[in-house]
Amino acid sequence: MATGNYVVGIDVGGQTTKLGVVDARGTVLAQTVIRTDNHEDVRLYVAELAEAVKKIILDANAEGQIRGVGVGAPNGNYYTGTIENAPNLPWAHQTVKFAELLSEALDGLPVALTNDANAAAVGEMTYGAARGMKNFIMITLGTGVGSGIVINGEVVYGHDGFAGELGHTAAVRNNGRACNCGKSGCLEAYCSATGVARTAREWLELTDEPSVLRSLDTIASKDVYDAAKDGDKLALKIFEFTGKILGRSFADFVAFSAPEAIVLFGGLARAKEFLRQPIEDSMNANLLPLWKDKVKIVFSQLKESDAAILGASALAWEL
Amino acid sequence: MATGNYVVGIDVGGQTTKLGVVDARGTVLAQTVIRTDNHEDVRLYVAELAEAVKKIILDANAEGQIRGVGVGAPNGNYYTGTIENAPNLPWAHQTVKFAELLSEALDGLPVALTNDANAAAVGEMTYGAARGMKNFIMITLGTGVGSGIVINGEVVYGHDGFAGELGHTAAVRNNGRACNCGKSGCLEAYCSATGVARTAREWLELTDEPSVLRSLDTIASKDVYDAAKDGDKLALKIFEFTGKILGRSFADFVAFSAPEAIVLFGGLARAKEFLRQPIEDSMNANLLPLWKDKVKIVFSQLKESDAAILGASALAWEL
Repeated sequence: MATGNYVVGIDVGGQTTKLGVVDARGTVLAQTVIRTDNHEDVRLYVAELAEAVKKIILDANAEGQIRGVGVGAPNGNYYTGTIENAPNLPWAHQTVKFAELLSEALDGLPVALTNDANAAAVGEMTYGAARGMKNFIMITLGTGVGSGIVINGEVVYGHDGFAGELGHTAAVRNNGRACNCGKSGCLEAYCSATGVARTAREWLELTDEPSVLRSLDTIASKDVYDAAKDGDKLALKIFEFTGKILGRSFADFVAFSAPEAIVLFGGLARAKEFLRQPIEDSMNANLLPLWKDKVKIVFSQLKESDAAILGASALAWEL
Repeated sequence: MATGNYVVGIDVGGQTTKLGVVDARGTVLAQTVIRTDNHEDVRLYVAELAEAVKKIILDANAEGQIRGVGVGAPNGNYYTGTIENAPNLPWAHQTVKFAELLSEALDGLPVALTNDANAAAVGEMTYGAARGMKNFIMITLGTGVGSGIVINGEVVYGHDGFAGELGHTAAVRNNGRACNCGKSGCLEAYCSATGVARTAREWLELTDEPSVLRSLDTIASKDVYDAAKDGDKLALKIFEFTGKILGRSFADFVAFSAPEAIVLFGGLARAKEFLRQPIEDSMNANLLPLWKDKVKIVFSQLKESDAAILGASALAWEL
C-alpha cells in the first residue's frame, strides 16, 4: 500500500476540515472542504470525510497512486493515532482512534496523524522555508499558539507523543492572563490572534491613547493589523509588545534545543513587518552571548491557502 | 582503535580534573586527580593529563584494551571537539581543539567531548537512574545549573552543538537576580548551590526571622542544608522556595520535550528530602492537565565520588 506518487493531506480545524491531493513537489492537485462540526459521532464524521477523500482522489486522477494520508488535528498523537480530548472538536471529547477509523473507511490506506503544529513543521521542512534545516522550531500563531520542534531532522514527539506545547510555557509568571488551558500567563494568552485582540481591549480600557480601534464594537487581531498598517500608534505598540513577549520566550526555546531558526506560521504571522524587529531585538537581548544574532527568525513560505493541507500531507511521505 | 573492554572518563572541573578507567558495568578500576588550573598553556595541561591517563591505564592493567576516552568539560562542543571560551579554565579563554590535542597526546586513542551536564546525562542513561529511558532531562545542580536533554535515546546537541542551557532560561522575568552569564533572572541565579546561598543571604538581610544561619560569617549551600536537617525554619523555607522555582521551570521544560522523567544530579541534589516535594507540587501546578502527576522527578543513582568520571566515560562507549 505504501507506494504511490501522491499523498492526501487533511487539516482538521474546529469548524472546517480542509483536504487535498498533493504531489512530491508540493502541488495541490485537487482539494475540498467539509464541516468539522456537523457531527457528534466520530463515525459519521469519518464516513463523510472518507467520501470527500475518495472524491478528490478521483478529481486528481490519482486512483491507485496514493501512498498514504497525513492528518493534522488538535491533540493528535503520532504514536497512537488517536485524538485525545480535543475541546473544540464535538466528536472528540474522549479519546478517538482516528487514524484507525479513517484507514478502515479508506479501504486500508495508511494514515499518519499528528497535531496541527507538528504537521506544519513537517510541511515547512518538506516544501517550505525550512527545507534543508535539521534543527528548527515551528511556531504557529493562530487562534492559539502551537509548536512543532524538529531536532536532527525529526519532529520531537516525546515520551507520550505530546511534546511541543510551547504555547503553554510561562510568558508571564505573576498575575498573568488566564489561558484557555486552565493555567495563567501562558504564551498563547498573549501572542495568539486572540491574545493580540485581548491586548488591544486591555490597553483601550487602561489608557487614554487615541486609536482608530476605539470606534469598533468588537476587535479581532485583523483589526489591529489593519490599524497598524494605517499607522495607528496604539496598534503599532500592540505588535511591539507582542513581539517582545514572543522574543523573550524564543530565547528560552533556543537555550533548549539550539535551533538554526524559528519559523513562524499562521494568521498572525502575516503581520511580519510589525513583528520581526521586536521579536529579533527581544530574543537577542535574552540570549546567551554564544547565540546572539545567530538564530534566524523566518516566516513561512507556504502559500497560505494550501499550507494546512501541505503540512498534513507531508506526514504521509514518511509512511 | 575503537575496540576494547574499557573506557577512560575525564571530568574537567575549574580546579581539579578527575579521571578513571571504567568497565562496561560502570566499575571504576583505577582513578586519579590532577589540577586543572596549574597551566595557562593548554598544551602543558594536556601533556600532564595524558601522563595521568597512561598511568591509570597501567594501574588498571588495561593496556591495549581502551576503546576510547570521554571528556566532560565546561563549554565542551560534541560536534567540533573544542572547548570554547570557558571563563573558569585558565587555558581555554579562546577556542581550544581539546579532543584533537588529547588524542594526539594519547597516540591516537579516539576522544569524544561534551559539556559536563551532557556527560552526566549519558552517564545516568548508561549506568544510573535513567537506564532504559529514551526521553528524559538531566538537571545538574552544582555551582551552576546545567542540563542534558535526551530525546529518543540521544543527547540533543542542536544546530551548533550547544543545546541544553536550561540553567539560563528565565526563572524570573522582572527584576531578576544578576547571573554570571550577563543576563538576569536565570534559573542558575536561584537554584544552583550559589543561588541557594544567595537566597539565604538575601532573606537574612530582608527579614528578622531567627535562624542558626545568622551566626555564620559566610554562608554556603551546605550550611543551609545542615541547618535544614536541624529543623531550622528559615533554611527549610529556602529549600521550599528553591524547589518551587525549579518546579515551575521544569513545567516549561516538559512542555518542550515531554520527557518521562527529570533527573537531578549534583551537590545540591543531595538535599532531596527537602527539594522533592516542593518541586513536584510546583511542577504539577504549572503543567498542562495531560501531564499532571505523570512526569517523574528522579534523583541520580550514581555514587557521587564516581559520578563525574562515569558520566564522561559513558560517552566513549559510543565512539
